[in-house]
Amino acid sequence: MLWSIDLNCDLGESFGAYTIGNDEEVIPYITSANIACGYHAGDPTVMHRSVLLCQKYGVQVGAHPGLPDLAGFGRRRMQIAPAEAADCVAYQVGALQAFCREAGVPLHHVKPHGALYNMAARDRPLADAICRAVQAAAPGAVLLALSGSEMVAAARAIGLPVACEVFADRGYRPDGALVPRGEPGSLIEDENQAIARVLRMVQEGAVPACDGTVIPLQADSVCVHGDQPKALRFVRRLRAALPAAGVALHPF
Amino acid sequence: MLWSIDLNCDLGESFGAYTIGNDEEVIPYITSANIACGYHAGDPTVMHRSVLLCQKYGVQVGAHPGLPDLAGFGRRRMQIAPAEAADCVAYQVGALQAFCREAGVPLHHVKPHGALYNMAARDRPLADAICRAVQAAAPGAVLLALSGSEMVAAARAIGLPVACEVFADRGYRPDGALVPRGEPGSLIEDENQAIARVLRMVQEGAVPACDGTVIPLQADSVCVHGDQPKALRFVRRLRAALPAAGVALHPF
Amino acid sequence: MLWSIDLNCDLGESFGAYTIGNDEEVIPYITSANIACGYHAGDPTVMHRSVLLCQKYGVQVGAHPGLPDLAGFGRRRMQIAPAEAADCVAYQVGALQAFCREAGVPLHHVKPHGALYNMAARDRPLADAICRAVQAAAPGAVLLALSGSEMVAAARAIGLPVACEVFADRGYRPDGALVPRGEPGSLIEDENQAIARVLRMVQEGAVPACDGTVIPLQADSVCVHGDQPKALRFVRRLRAALPAAGVALHPF
Amino acid sequence: MLWSIDLNCDLGESFGAYTIGNDEEVIPYITSANIACGYHAGDPTVMHRSVLLCQKYGVQVGAHPGLPDLAGFGRRRMQIAPAEAADCVAYQVGALQAFCREAGVPLHHVKPHGALYNMAARDRPLADAICRAVQAAAPGAVLLALSGSEMVAAARAIGLPVACEVFADRGYRPDGALVPRGEPGSLIEDENQAIARVLRMVQEGAVPACDGTVIPLQADSVCVHGDQPKALRFVRRLRAALPAAGVALHPF
Repeated sequence: MLWSIDLNCDLGESFGAYTIGNDEEVIPYITSANIACGYHAGDPTVMHRSVLLCQKYGVQVGAHPGLPDLAGFGRRRMQIAPAEAADCVAYQVGALQAFCREAGVPLHHVKPHGALYNMAARDRPLADAICRAVQAAAPGAVLLALSGSEMVAAARAIGLPVACEVFADRGYRPDGALVPRGEPGSLIEDENQAIARVLRMVQEGAVPACDGTVIPLQADSVCVHGDQPKALRFVRRLRAALPAAGVALHPF
Repeated sequence: MLWSIDLNCDLGESFGAYTIGNDEEVIPYITSANIACGYHAGDPTVMHRSVLLCQKYGVQVGAHPGLPDLAGFGRRRMQIAPAEAADCVAYQVGALQAFCREAGVPLHHVKPHGALYNMAARDRPLADAICRAVQAAAPGAVLLALSGSEMVAAARAIGLPVACEVFADRGYRPDGALVPRGEPGSLIEDENQAIARVLRMVQEGAVPACDGTVIPLQADSVCVHGDQPKALRFVRRLRAALPAAGVALHPF
Repeated sequence: MLWSIDLNCDLGESFGAYTIGNDEEVIPYITSANIACGYHAGDPTVMHRSVLLCQKYGVQVGAHPGLPDLAGFGRRRMQIAPAEAADCVAYQVGALQAFCREAGVPLHHVKPHGALYNMAARDRPLADAICRAVQAAAPGAVLLALSGSEMVAAARAIGLPVACEVFADRGYRPDGALVPRGEPGSLIEDENQAIARVLRMVQEGAVPACDGTVIPLQADSVCVHGDQPKALRFVRRLRAALPAAGVALHPF
Repeated sequence: MLWSIDLNCDLGESFGAYTIGNDEEVIPYITSANIACGYHAGDPTVMHRSVLLCQKYGVQVGAHPGLPDLAGFGRRRMQIAPAEAADCVAYQVGALQAFCREAGVPLHHVKPHGALYNMAARDRPLADAICRAVQAAAPGAVLLALSGSEMVAAARAIGLPVACEVFADRGYRPDGALVPRGEPGSLIEDENQAIARVLRMVQEGAVPACDGTVIPLQADSVCVHGDQPKALRFVRRLRAALPAAGVALHPF
């Protein structure tokens, strides 16, 4: 096929007695997984189990480090010095690597989570610090970052391999940033439209922003979700629609 | 010299705004350090700094994984399944390895902390699970465990390299266990006596238990402390007394 | 009616993005609720919402303090000094009272959770310390404790009002303790048998232990669960069966 | 005397094995204390002990609720909805009240800590939510807030008693806000100047801002510190200088 794309999904977000997500149900449909590392979600036993689940399904293992905020699920922006954020990332990445080593699978990528992902997308010193931490702590792993973000620029500046992530169900601003949740145009509700957008991103390297402008972006991986029945249904549809349109599915 | 011994000390026990220990003061006198990994003490930035401190002083870096109990400093026994304890150890060991990799120093050893150390010393299934986790998560690292304990037996059973730890200032029971803190004979207060005991452990492989019985033990490393002026003074004395008696100081 | 009983259920066990239980579904069937207080489960916003939910349904509000162990849901025994456990109980009870005060509802009772409940049931010094903390921190509140336990004795010794809890679906040992989970006879699977047992506990003050011995107990409240469809169905059946057998449902 | 002022100090910031502050040394010199409530610092046993310490020295007990960020000591700004912040404040205030009730001392005041204090000083919806929580959770307690801040306005708008806090050692901006730490003019290093400033604040209700403008402020309480020998020495000097200049020391 001419084109290819990766489908990535957050995994391993349960914690102790608390369950989030339907990991077993979504994993057959994805090509790479971002496993929570205990700061915003996940715990050692969930991480261990999640790595084994990825191994069983041939899904690439990624680390999904977040802010130290279990109560806020890592979604709350927090004032944090770049060096401290970098240490938090190295810590979490290293912790997941222990389970990768035990299972004999490589750590394929690192994708910061939630508020950390969004903060680093627009804050170059933070992005620089995180990229250096990923490069040093996980040699060989690829950074997965918002297409067009400061994270992508920071990774390229130091030679850290980087894959660009796009969102099927999120609106983009003309500057390439996501329309913040809660604002008009932040969500693409129509599934057909969402699928058409993904195809255009992959095949044309472009997507219409919320104001109609067509903006360029690089699409190496699409972020999907498995925590709701509707989301799961969409993953299955997208998983079928992509190859039918000539887009192969495999990890970046 | 005929004999040799390692001096190990817990390091990196500070957390956020909270400081414990005089790491900078004790490190010149020791040959290996056990760095807290964020569960009972320590945080990512403290861990990062502690690895660099060890590198600067040529001290071997060890992981010091503990129970998930910051409020209790990992000293409270907690009911925990062997598999879960093993996952907690792998997580913490992996986290520290990220900073070792960044600094370019090897992870030399793993020594469980506090209640986990004591529980695993006498609980073979727990010891087995922890040893397997260390072997899988940190290939090449040595386990540092209480001389004569179930941990030593468990490590030997799976071919995990193990070094035996002895205590200069603690009393031993006839079965080789430490006299629990708070009980009579738990502490050796006299410094001269403590030094004499260490020499006998190293040179004769034996120590008098609290009832006078002489028990055999293997002494690869002596645990020292640097958090109190008195402890620091003792480390300096021990550091001087050992070579004077023909015992070389170097890491196991 | 001749007899009466309270139906109590744990509530407010969600935490941040994590949901446990079907609080809205079970609350119409119960007469008192034990609200998690942030140590083993729950968070301030969940606590606030849970108090308002109880108020809406006319259900009595109780505090459900647990061990500081969110990762273990407060179910893991932990070594804790009586004075420290008492402080943890006072802290959590006080925290819930803030939301009671805000809503204008009284704090009706305090029921320790999980491992703390089980530990205090058999450890008199621990029971004494907890009872004194409840009496001092929540004047007027009733202690809800395992029928026949040290907690009941400790409460009576200091004049703390106490209600005795029984379990519909758990086996009892001849000494009145619950058969530990996982052991044969720990669970009463048959719903008809469970209902019959509750009726006998209420009407005769007795229940057959796992060895057939009939043991006396005082039944002021039955513990029910709402977190599984099966549990919810049982609550509805019990709720209907009790009045039909002449047992009124109201809070202790 | 014509004038009076309160000296308040943060207390009870230790946590588990970690110690911060010299509570026993500073307490003889202050008139009210802000006790950490377990979110940014403190734990139940430290809180209990701190209330008893205040009782012993006749110092007024205040709650010092902070953001849920022990690792950052509550000093990092965090995105938090006003309602959630209010719940966190109610939770912590309630928790401290349990120890007040046990000791038989009233909860005198509530002073938000660190980043929460600073955020609420300039964010009216956040200030409104916190004031309502304090009023509902701690009837009779006074809010202690930055002189001239949104918190003072929010408290007055709902009839919550409020005392205005000033800082001896911090520079003010022309708008009445503190010069942020790290910026030029943020600290008043000279002790004589700091004492002169306090006297002017109390006696004239004014202080020179960093640009020389004289700004009005209301001084009900001066914030002092006891965690460093230098800070402690300053408290003693201030404690002596105030009465000598006709300013009585007593709680607001």
